[in-house]
Amino acid sequence: MTSLSKNRIKYIHSLELKKNRREEKVFLAEGPKLVGDLLERFPCRLLAATAGWLNQHPVVSADEVIEVTPDELSRASLLKAPQQVLAVFSQPEYTVDYAKIRESLCLALDDVQDPGNLGTIIRLADWFGIEHIFCSPNTVDVYNPKTVQATMGGIARVKVHYTPLPDLIRSLGDIPVYGTFLDGQNMYGQQLSANGLIVMGNEGNGIGDEVGRLINRRLYIPNYPQERETSESLNVAIATAVVCAEFRRQAASL
Amino acid sequence: MTSLSKNRIKYIHSLELKKNRREEKVFLAEGPKLVGDLLERFPCRLLAATAGWLNQHPVVSADEVIEVTPDELSRASLLKAPQQVLAVFSQPEYTVDYAKIRESLCLALDDVQDPGNLGTIIRLADWFGIEHIFCSPNTVDVYNPKTVQATMGGIARVKVHYTPLPDLIRSLGDIPVYGTFLDGQNMYGQQLSANGLIVMGNEGNGIGDEVGRLINRRLYIPNYPQERETSESLNVAIATAVVCAEFRRQAASL
Repeated sequence: MTSLSKNRIKYIHSLELKKNRREEKVFLAEGPKLVGDLLERFPCRLLAATAGWLNQHPVVSADEVIEVTPDELSRASLLKAPQQVLAVFSQPEYTVDYAKIRESLCLALDDVQDPGNLGTIIRLADWFGIEHIFCSPNTVDVYNPKTVQATMGGIARVKVHYTPLPDLIRSLGDIPVYGTFLDGQNMYGQQLSANGLIVMGNEGNGIGDEVGRLINRRLYIPNYPQERETSESLNVAIATAVVCAEFRRQAASL
Repeated sequence: MTSLSKNRIKYIHSLELKKNRREEKVFLAEGPKLVGDLLERFPCRLLAATAGWLNQHPVVSADEVIEVTPDELSRASLLKAPQQVLAVFSQPEYTVDYAKIRESLCLALDDVQDPGNLGTIIRLADWFGIEHIFCSPNTVDVYNPKTVQATMGGIARVKVHYTPLPDLIRSLGDIPVYGTFLDGQNMYGQQLSANGLIVMGNEGNGIGDEVGRLINRRLYIPNYPQERETSESLNVAIATAVVCAEFRRQAASL
């Protein structure tokens, strides 16, 4: 074991920037739950943990393991309240089996901008058994530390891909492509399929025009009571959850 | 019109702290949508806006209105991307009609800690027509600027109260009190009432023991597929949304 040098702390902090994460093909994760989930799946380059955490994990598979004092951990951490362990993991490379995608329920995100929203969507996709999320190239980076933390481990199981959504939708051919719109059909009156793509849009502007034209099932999440005239809206992660829950309720015939 | 003095900027920044907001009984809100919604309901003490916003709003009811340059607005704003207008409003004082509460569907939050989560819950309560949210005294402050921003205007319509939840539940008498638990009943198999209290817990620890003992309808949000052994969980705002959506689906007989 070595100690946490200034250079290593600088390296860890540098991973706040996408440019540096991309060059090194790595990302940072913090806390016992998240790091524990990731250690099961992804190669770990560097792990820094307190003696307490290391005692509970006598065998750690990482290129480098460093025992740190709580004070050293604070200096390295990007969190307000550092949590025993942080680690740098290799970014995974996924291949996509389009035949399987056509038969499963997947999410597509059209320019979601907030790192917390993306992380929360990955976490709920994990809950609802959605294995693949396709992001437009302008969607926030999945390896943004705020996104990684918000997944609460979901990033270890849900596969996130970046690809132009119009090309993806065209290449998937004749499958149901859902999106939510204010003038869509009340989703509770629809028979929702067990497969297909659910497209969710940008926080401010919703689904872009080009992607919008490729959506063949326009849904609406009803507010309550419906006759009300309102100025409210739903956060994109909240809307995603309500839609996914309804797909899964119908699939389980509940 | 006066200009935005250093003292006023200092005053605006001081409202990041609960202590100062409480002393002055005010809170800060930013952006055209949020400030617009709040101006309809709450007394405005101070409003600072660009010439563009002021031209579109020739009549503004506020104790003090200041025209600012985009640069001055940036210095006063707590946001990364300031948005034309910011304003300081009086904190409202609500009286609670318990007879009405007993007949409506309300939320109770047991020590929710994250300002963004509370704001998102207020926003979704607004969507689902839930007028009252009762917060335990240790729940994050509703006037935290991050909470206010995340409500997207919901704070102008949803009434948030701070009160010890056990006392509240006891004083409401014999009404349905719901909570979500890993060992609860699948909520899709339950007939959910049109009135009652839905209790949601702390991000890390869920619902506390004392409040937990007062819950008479224990629900479970099923994951998918259900037989899976998982390490995932749902964010508290996401869980709140999925539960509220199901209450409202059943109430509208959808």
